[in-house]
Amino acid sequence: MRAHNFGAGPCTLPLDVLEEVRSEFVDFAGTGMSLIELSHRSAEYEAVHEEALALAREVAQLPDDFEVLFIQGGATLQFAMVALNLLHPEEEAGYVVSGSWGARALEDASPHGRVYSAWDGKESQYTTMPTAGEIALKSNSRYLHVTSNETIGGIRMVEFPDLGVPLVGDMSSDFLSRPIDWRLFDLVYGGVQKNLAPAGMAVVYVRKAALENARTDLGSFLRYHWHAETKSLGHTPPMFPIYLMGKVLRLMQARGGVEALAEESAAKAAVIYNVIDVSDGFYRSPVEPSVRSHMNVVFRLLDEALEEQFVKEATAADMIGLKGHRSVGGCRASVYAALAFESVEVLAAFMVDFAGRNRSS
Amino acid sequence: MRAHNFGAGPCTLPLDVLEEVRSEFVDFAGTGMSLIELSHRSAEYEAVHEEALALAREVAQLPDDFEVLFIQGGATLQFAMVALNLLHPEEEAGYVVSGSWGARALEDASPHGRVYSAWDGKESQYTTMPTAGEIALKSNSRYLHVTSNETIGGIRMVEFPDLGVPLVGDMSSDFLSRPIDWRLFDLVYGGVQKNLAPAGMAVVYVRKAALENARTDLGSFLRYHWHAETKSLGHTPPMFPIYLMGKVLRLMQARGGVEALAEESAAKAAVIYNVIDVSDGFYRSPVEPSVRSHMNVVFRLLDEALEEQFVKEATAADMIGLKGHRSVGGCRASVYAALAFESVEVLAAFMVDFAGRNRSS
Repeated sequence: MRAHNFGAGPCTLPLDVLEEVRSEFVDFAGTGMSLIELSHRSAEYEAVHEEALALAREVAQLPDDFEVLFIQGGATLQFAMVALNLLHPEEEAGYVVSGSWGARALEDASPHGRVYSAWDGKESQYTTMPTAGEIALKSNSRYLHVTSNETIGGIRMVEFPDLGVPLVGDMSSDFLSRPIDWRLFDLVYGGVQKNLAPAGMAVVYVRKAALENARTDLGSFLRYHWHAETKSLGHTPPMFPIYLMGKVLRLMQARGGVEALAEESAAKAAVIYNVIDVSDGFYRSPVEPSVRSHMNVVFRLLDEALEEQFVKEATAADMIGLKGHRSVGGCRASVYAALAFESVEVLAAFMVDFAGRNRSS
Repeated sequence: MRAHNFGAGPCTLPLDVLEEVRSEFVDFAGTGMSLIELSHRSAEYEAVHEEALALAREVAQLPDDFEVLFIQGGATLQFAMVALNLLHPEEEAGYVVSGSWGARALEDASPHGRVYSAWDGKESQYTTMPTAGEIALKSNSRYLHVTSNETIGGIRMVEFPDLGVPLVGDMSSDFLSRPIDWRLFDLVYGGVQKNLAPAGMAVVYVRKAALENARTDLGSFLRYHWHAETKSLGHTPPMFPIYLMGKVLRLMQARGGVEALAEESAAKAAVIYNVIDVSDGFYRSPVEPSVRSHMNVVFRLLDEALEEQFVKEATAADMIGLKGHRSVGGCRASVYAALAFESVEVLAAFMVDFAGRNRSS
């Protein structure tokens, strides 16, 4: 019995891919070895690596003047690396603090460069995103950092601000699930453990001109340059996530690429938001409707006891991962790319049923 | 047909472990999910994580005043992190440059602290290790960095120097395959992709007193503190390598722990060194006999054409990974913990046969 996995990350991956990995796990491509036992310099692994790089470019519809890097450490290491690489001592950069992750990005960058908050959603308890005009960007800033989707708060940046300063985007939780206007960005990064692969690395897209201007007085692993020059093969790369991501990306392309994925995500999220909206207050979305996340549907019930009961009954019915983040409580249904539409329908039916049974209590 | 995998890393892993991983890959412990789909906050994953931490401590016979950290980025990121964390601005540290890896450790640390070469094996073309007396250590050094085994050169540090300055050891290529005298070390690190797990992280052992004194003005991922405080769960950890390493460590304990593994490695390496030594010059070990690696047996044949022929015929007979590192040429047989004794015997027999057939040519 396959669980309905609404986890916020790590999260569900395509069953076809998991079964394919299993079938070739002990003997990869007739080598008599597992993929994880191959040399990263072997022809067999290099083909896997090259294909993953090419697909990461293709699915993102990446322009030629960008590089693709695979870097261990997830988005968390990127919080520091972005500032370490892009900010020279005299430069500064603005950050949109739209929630927990925007705040972490700013905090982790601060030991490594002159960074400042250009907007903070604290007043609304992080339930809104800023309009371009609300962002207090200093015009000489090297970049403006934005978080495209706040996994915990359940809000998304619908349009990216064009303020004449290059953007740096943490897109970890809606990575490759929406088209990106690359003209606005110098750099986009995302941990792979939501839509793409097992935890263990980030994909970083960086504009070549930004790379040329980046700092070089860093240990090799901390330099974007080094990852670019070595095609992310300067040391032993995280071969297993790269290999699995290649398979997932191939499937994403076959399903119609980012445009199709964006539509699917919006449709899946809409099913749940609709149940919330017609529930006559039994369920409640705490966020500003125009910025509702297409990835993480956050909702509250009447009280915490009922929320606990909801999660308990859902779990018993094989719907996993519906508890909200411990910092905010409530419930959250994450509907990443690999989550089947059927799982969403099962959840929606359960929500309606649960509301019916508990409304008068 | 299982290959005989003499690769220098990534490399062979225990077949029993691979088969166990395969059997539970799509449905882990009855969860209806793959392990790589679980939340890193789930009870199922936390049990895996805790067990891996405990085993990494137990197998290493680690004293209580050390912490165990799992950090993405392999040894390469540690080259920078060691200096970033341990060196305050006024302090300096010495490095033993015993080969390619010692040199990389020094080079990558140099942007991040005042570091110097305390010994360099260039004169012998990195075929020897220093005696304690040969190391030009400044007595006020914060630490002395050593590489316990040079994977490319095929030499090992037999005894670690006790010079009154704490050691920092890169033990990537003989990690957990020899007992460690912890009194000498403040920190030991190693990429896991040789003896332990798929590529994707390093294990770092750090003395608590060194941690308390470490720098804190760094982004969270770059701080040893943060990994220690969060038990390496501050962000999504590399769950798959951690899970697989747990299984490998359990097997290592069952096989008798590091003492038994050290004996096995020495015995496996000795079989090949013996073929070399009795080959009457057909095979030649370029390194000083007293520091021969127990992990990477490096050898040369009469000329490069013959070396190429040797590797070609060995590959055809399912002995993989025998080509020396591209920077030094020649041949190399790596005999890591999971390599079966039988594979070593197959290689030894092949070497004897190959020499007999080609001696007069």
